[in-house]
Amino acid sequence: MNRLLNNNKLKEFYMQMYNFNSGPSILPEYVLRKAAEAITDFKKTGLSILEIGHRTTAFIDTLQEARQLAKELMQLGPDYEVLYLQGGATTQFMQVPMNLLGASDTAAYCDNGIWGTKAIKEAEIWGNVNVVSSTKDKNYSYIEKVFAIPDAVNYLHITTNNTVEGTQWHTIPGTGQTPLVADMSSDIFSRPLDFSRFSLMYAGAQKNAGAAGTTLVIVNKNILGRINRNIPPIMDYRKHIEADSLLNTAPVFAVYVSYLTLKWIKEEGGLEEMWKRTKQRAELMYAALDSLDIFTPIAAKEDRSLMNVTFTIENKNWEDEFLELCKEHGMIGVKGYRTVGGLRVSLYNAMPVSSVVKFTELMSMFNDRKKKAN
Amino acid sequence: MNRLLNNNKLKEFYMQMYNFNSGPSILPEYVLRKAAEAITDFKKTGLSILEIGHRTTAFIDTLQEARQLAKELMQLGPDYEVLYLQGGATTQFMQVPMNLLGASDTAAYCDNGIWGTKAIKEAEIWGNVNVVSSTKDKNYSYIEKVFAIPDAVNYLHITTNNTVEGTQWHTIPGTGQTPLVADMSSDIFSRPLDFSRFSLMYAGAQKNAGAAGTTLVIVNKNILGRINRNIPPIMDYRKHIEADSLLNTAPVFAVYVSYLTLKWIKEEGGLEEMWKRTKQRAELMYAALDSLDIFTPIAAKEDRSLMNVTFTIENKNWEDEFLELCKEHGMIGVKGYRTVGGLRVSLYNAMPVSSVVKFTELMSMFNDRKKKAN
Repeated sequence: MNRLLNNNKLKEFYMQMYNFNSGPSILPEYVLRKAAEAITDFKKTGLSILEIGHRTTAFIDTLQEARQLAKELMQLGPDYEVLYLQGGATTQFMQVPMNLLGASDTAAYCDNGIWGTKAIKEAEIWGNVNVVSSTKDKNYSYIEKVFAIPDAVNYLHITTNNTVEGTQWHTIPGTGQTPLVADMSSDIFSRPLDFSRFSLMYAGAQKNAGAAGTTLVIVNKNILGRINRNIPPIMDYRKHIEADSLLNTAPVFAVYVSYLTLKWIKEEGGLEEMWKRTKQRAELMYAALDSLDIFTPIAAKEDRSLMNVTFTIENKNWEDEFLELCKEHGMIGVKGYRTVGGLRVSLYNAMPVSSVVKFTELMSMFNDRKKKAN
Repeated sequence: MNRLLNNNKLKEFYMQMYNFNSGPSILPEYVLRKAAEAITDFKKTGLSILEIGHRTTAFIDTLQEARQLAKELMQLGPDYEVLYLQGGATTQFMQVPMNLLGASDTAAYCDNGIWGTKAIKEAEIWGNVNVVSSTKDKNYSYIEKVFAIPDAVNYLHITTNNTVEGTQWHTIPGTGQTPLVADMSSDIFSRPLDFSRFSLMYAGAQKNAGAAGTTLVIVNKNILGRINRNIPPIMDYRKHIEADSLLNTAPVFAVYVSYLTLKWIKEEGGLEEMWKRTKQRAELMYAALDSLDIFTPIAAKEDRSLMNVTFTIENKNWEDEFLELCKEHGMIGVKGYRTVGGLRVSLYNAMPVSSVVKFTELMSMFNDRKKKAN
């Protein structure tokens, strides 16, 4: 967080920034430093990473290392392939059913928030969707964990963490023989899970896996090729797998930033260490929310997201006032999403625990001020 | 080209590099310097461009300026919209017919090279394709300029410059009332044209419009919405236009690099100045090829590409020897594409004329050496 203050020349111009944005979001200083270096010279090639061919050994090595790192962090076996694609999770909302859902087949979807709803709408273009669970009745403030999955659906789709609403699946639903597909955009690499229980996982890189501009798709090869559709090659996971994730020009720089981010995660101690920090940050935030009178968390207690914390303040004017105070302290990205309102802080892997402490101190100070004045 | 030699600390490690790659390819030093700066601090926000939200004013301003710059450089009126999308020209091979070609409609395509062929294959998934011209008979070494366009085709598709084969359309074909669609990936922004004669133009950014990771689509709004297809929203140009090219998370950094590249083009003198340099570089290269005995250009004289120059050397062993010599002189990206063979140099906007002079000097020296030895 403090990177700019380390530079004396810049010290006079900048305050310390605390980036609580929901994505694109904070990245480790290591990643930013190495990324900037690569723009001047990538791997001592004498060329910028922005000028280097996607079929050069220097880049291919990086791409393949990144794919391998993802598998290693998730402890996945040889059935799984990691692809670096483009177009964000939004494109996956289309690409998943294009590959897995025949025109007369049915897929099961859980509707737990704005992104799940979008995924459902896109899937309906390609086949039938059975919404097996929806928590729209309470503005998606909770997760329904018990529901029936009909036989003969091609897959069940969930959003493991709801960025906007601030809820998260804390246990993976059992799906028996039904392949489980998950949008993990906002909690990938934040915790160890038995990832082999998922058949397909995808995530826009711009939260815990890098910067905006590439999308990770991690797929069990065995679920591909089961439907009858003339899939456009550029949308066909199998074509991307055959091409070792280099079917067409890769988003070279975005892949490199993701590689650096995964390398950082590994060197810091992998998902076990990320998980430790995830819990520390979230516990600090929820403890403050639960103990300070004027603050109220939005999500149901047992489904609280450890990545995106949504909450309200006793009255709307105080919310605006608190947002102003945050800004004065360099704390940005605190405003809630319009469908939910209130406030939200995002606590991704790169967020130091010390920044959360600072934030909760500000909450506490504001709470005291309001209590005294009233 | 000489940027690394300007840095004393690096001087001892690096030689000057001449990047003749076909894409991703050379970028102006101005672009690299500003891009590296933005990784440390974007527009004095105190945040890295890799961490900044795509819906912040700082980024939206950049995106809208980039879109405006593209229109300005191409002198396009209010009917045109510029979109920054993802997935490369390869994704456009699918997206164009998805938006413009109904299942029972027909589109006309010119098959002038490997990329045109790919575009045809993807279009066939969505409707009927009438290949109105093909130059496959001579391995795509020329452009057929006279051909009939059937009535009632939805559009005619051409590739304005064939990166692999080294041919280029030097006049825009007349299409009457038929909308003209063009893949301009490898010659966009290299010359002034009456761009209003095109209804849709697209280009992967990684040659003349930036780095890999974003794709420019420039479309006349009036040709949209004419077919009956339930287009997936993420693939629907109209949805992207309505959202001012921010339908989902943009590839923030790639858009910024494209913005810098367009700004550089404008400040250097716009497309008139780029055109002057384009001609200078190409004239130097072709003059050398035409005058040196052992070198032979591949493309038909009147269709020679001014961006990608393809040629052979009298015998295959000499080609390998010349490639080695190039490498020793820091001249990279000179090997031809496997379907064409021989050699290729790419001469994009950022390539200094002086680098082409250096290259032709090497050709001349090699020619003399071989002539003397034989």
